[in-house]
Amino acid sequence: MDRLSLFHPVTSIADLAANGPTIYQSANGVRMQNAAGRDVIDMGAGLWCVNIGYGRGELADAAADAMRNLSYQHLFGGASCEATILLADRILTLFRNRANAPHMARVFFGTSGSDANDTALKLVRYYNNMRGLPAKKKIISRLGAYHGVTLASGSLTGIAAYHKAFDLPIEGVLHTSCPHYYGGSENGESEAAFTERMVADLEAMIKREGPDTVAAFIAEPVIGTGGVVLPPENYFQRVQEVLDRHDILLIADEVITGFGRTGQWFGTGTYGLRPDIVSLAKGLTSAYFPMSANVVSERIWSVLEDTSAQMGAFMHGFTYSGHPVGSAVAMANIDIIEQEGMVENAAALAPRLLSALQERLGENPYIGDIRGVGLMAAVEFVADRETRRPFAPGTNPHRLVARLATEQGVLTRALPYLTVNSFSPPLSITASEIDEAIDRYAQAVALATPQLAALDASA
Amino acid sequence: MDRLSLFHPVTSIADLAANGPTIYQSANGVRMQNAAGRDVIDMGAGLWCVNIGYGRGELADAAADAMRNLSYQHLFGGASCEATILLADRILTLFRNRANAPHMARVFFGTSGSDANDTALKLVRYYNNMRGLPAKKKIISRLGAYHGVTLASGSLTGIAAYHKAFDLPIEGVLHTSCPHYYGGSENGESEAAFTERMVADLEAMIKREGPDTVAAFIAEPVIGTGGVVLPPENYFQRVQEVLDRHDILLIADEVITGFGRTGQWFGTGTYGLRPDIVSLAKGLTSAYFPMSANVVSERIWSVLEDTSAQMGAFMHGFTYSGHPVGSAVAMANIDIIEQEGMVENAAALAPRLLSALQERLGENPYIGDIRGVGLMAAVEFVADRETRRPFAPGTNPHRLVARLATEQGVLTRALPYLTVNSFSPPLSITASEIDEAIDRYAQAVALATPQLAALDASA
Repeated sequence: MDRLSLFHPVTSIADLAANGPTIYQSANGVRMQNAAGRDVIDMGAGLWCVNIGYGRGELADAAADAMRNLSYQHLFGGASCEATILLADRILTLFRNRANAPHMARVFFGTSGSDANDTALKLVRYYNNMRGLPAKKKIISRLGAYHGVTLASGSLTGIAAYHKAFDLPIEGVLHTSCPHYYGGSENGESEAAFTERMVADLEAMIKREGPDTVAAFIAEPVIGTGGVVLPPENYFQRVQEVLDRHDILLIADEVITGFGRTGQWFGTGTYGLRPDIVSLAKGLTSAYFPMSANVVSERIWSVLEDTSAQMGAFMHGFTYSGHPVGSAVAMANIDIIEQEGMVENAAALAPRLLSALQERLGENPYIGDIRGVGLMAAVEFVADRETRRPFAPGTNPHRLVARLATEQGVLTRALPYLTVNSFSPPLSITASEIDEAIDRYAQAVALATPQLAALDASA
Repeated sequence: MDRLSLFHPVTSIADLAANGPTIYQSANGVRMQNAAGRDVIDMGAGLWCVNIGYGRGELADAAADAMRNLSYQHLFGGASCEATILLADRILTLFRNRANAPHMARVFFGTSGSDANDTALKLVRYYNNMRGLPAKKKIISRLGAYHGVTLASGSLTGIAAYHKAFDLPIEGVLHTSCPHYYGGSENGESEAAFTERMVADLEAMIKREGPDTVAAFIAEPVIGTGGVVLPPENYFQRVQEVLDRHDILLIADEVITGFGRTGQWFGTGTYGLRPDIVSLAKGLTSAYFPMSANVVSERIWSVLEDTSAQMGAFMHGFTYSGHPVGSAVAMANIDIIEQEGMVENAAALAPRLLSALQERLGENPYIGDIRGVGLMAAVEFVADRETRRPFAPGTNPHRLVARLATEQGVLTRALPYLTVNSFSPPLSITASEIDEAIDRYAQAVALATPQLAALDASA
């Protein structure tokens, strides 16, 4: 019935026809059970989203209570509801207190990270139109970035596989260098020198395009889907200087990094960003309910406010912007993160995750780099550790390993840009669960290693 | 706190600052309670979306059970879950049995009507790229159409207010005439002649652009937000002939008309459409949970299938595509629609809604047209009934009436394209609730009428 009815996202129709779906039945904490009854540790937290872990009754209760009381309310034309007001206030308070971002002013809601970044792009256009700068509209993103799949957010995404056959990116979206030190640095280049080169690339692009045509720069504090690429030393401080110099907004895509993933509440705090717009989704509700948000700075809000009487209503918004049930679920989710110290747990267990990977896999001849921050980590495969030579295109060693890992009972993602397996478990994970998961993963790598040798030889 | 934290969608910041929000506390059936304790009949069903009415415990139970069991599952890479498979099959079965659309082949899921139409646009591009027709990409929409607010779906929307200040529409999206017989027909023009003129406009646009550059036509079976514009006599039959002649796909946006609104399960059935893509949202879950869907025809699916081995994974999809909790909620929602005969109720009460409006308001000098199908209806205001002269731009008689109606305890929407108040109550509404609501609305119109006279005089 799956094959005859479902059009799967990000799936090969041919593979599905050949192999059928993998059906999951239930999940609790960090563990899922598939249709074959196999226990699987989800080291991906779904798609980087189940921050508090699966099956928490508190969120089920919050959702059911909210549905019984006020199953839907829109926020159009000044309509409102209590849960959503409280949530907006709470998000602002978190940014002010936890990310040293007292300049964040208002919260706009949607349902997905894609729509949040789509909204960010539209907001940037609106902002510069209101400022009388109609030519200042281009947005610079980065190669390797993932920002979603709507026409606009898919254009912001800097991974060719998402563009192919959809005629993306749209005009006015550019991609500068991916700041991936391990894969992109030149022989002997220091991390500080690499940062300067990345920043120089960005500024050269701005000057080439004309600073008066560039409106915004969008970045994940840590590139997620593009390979768990950590910003090199001092990167965002130097980028911010360039943006300030040219009156360019910073959009921080915290869809993955928000709500504890990096070991702090927000990546904005971890890396000292001063964003004008922040996109949130995933961890906001731990994926129990589709919800996203744009946190907007005073600098943008004041322009919207000043031009409101002249412009009338701000003609953008979704039916489900600020859904009362989603707001109740998000509040219960943040309660759990706070009360159970999950951000602190992520920070405390980050070294354990990295050291477990390094101890078990650090000597494997096909693993070139193991890196991470908080509870997000990457294992990057190379054909040759010495020269960092990648596997030939299409050989996909990381897909082979991820498939074997699933058979061993652990989920890792095989990413679409670098040959990386990523790890982003629920923030509720324990030290022994990490050990058990990495043990299973190491078994999969051991099983794969002879085949990786053959892959390399064939390439 | 609302004013200091929330960035409201489709709201005037200046108005909100002056008047504050209207906070709703709870809702049950067709009735809501605001913070002042006032009982209000929601004749809008939220934003055309609460099809089964508010506060149904069955959906709350379905959501809570699903969250406890499997609070999240993605469908990437062939992963799947039972609830979503069952829902996809059920939607296809509904189309085959209820809308005479046996050619619908697969269901893709998202979270909002906006993302469904965004997906439709991307799918059209993909389809023609796979067919080796890279120049055939333009999409024709209609003036007055509403298809969402993402960059792509907002471009498909044909209402200038949603384009202004966002630099929309994007290139490659065109808008043909709005088939509004009451407002757009010429003196003495028959409905049949009007249809021919609308269809000729469409074909002229196709020929002007070049049929080999036009990929798709998108239409709501009944234009909703644009004014409850019913297709004139034979319109879609004649449009379909034009599309067939030029190998142009038909996208039916059933976000509003789906799940019983027109008195049949789908507008596709009501008006005999043969769509290639159908966009669904709102009534799919009665807004208890954000969920949308694209139903895709065999003609498109077979191209995707045939090119899959060569293309690899279809690189489009949302984190929350096919959410297991949303699927469980949608199943419970469709159960209720079926078991309680809500589509039949919508058909049965449609004449009651129209006749109540006509009896109470048919003689008002500022109401030019009252129309509807199923449980969607419009009251259109004009400054002069005889000549159908509209009120001067910016005078907004329908907003005045909607505001007074809220004070009288009934919600109607003041639409952004025509000067229309719309009615789209929950399909669970009873005859006496319709009478009570229209009674309240008629009182509001009576209170407004002297002010409408003044508005007209000032214009």
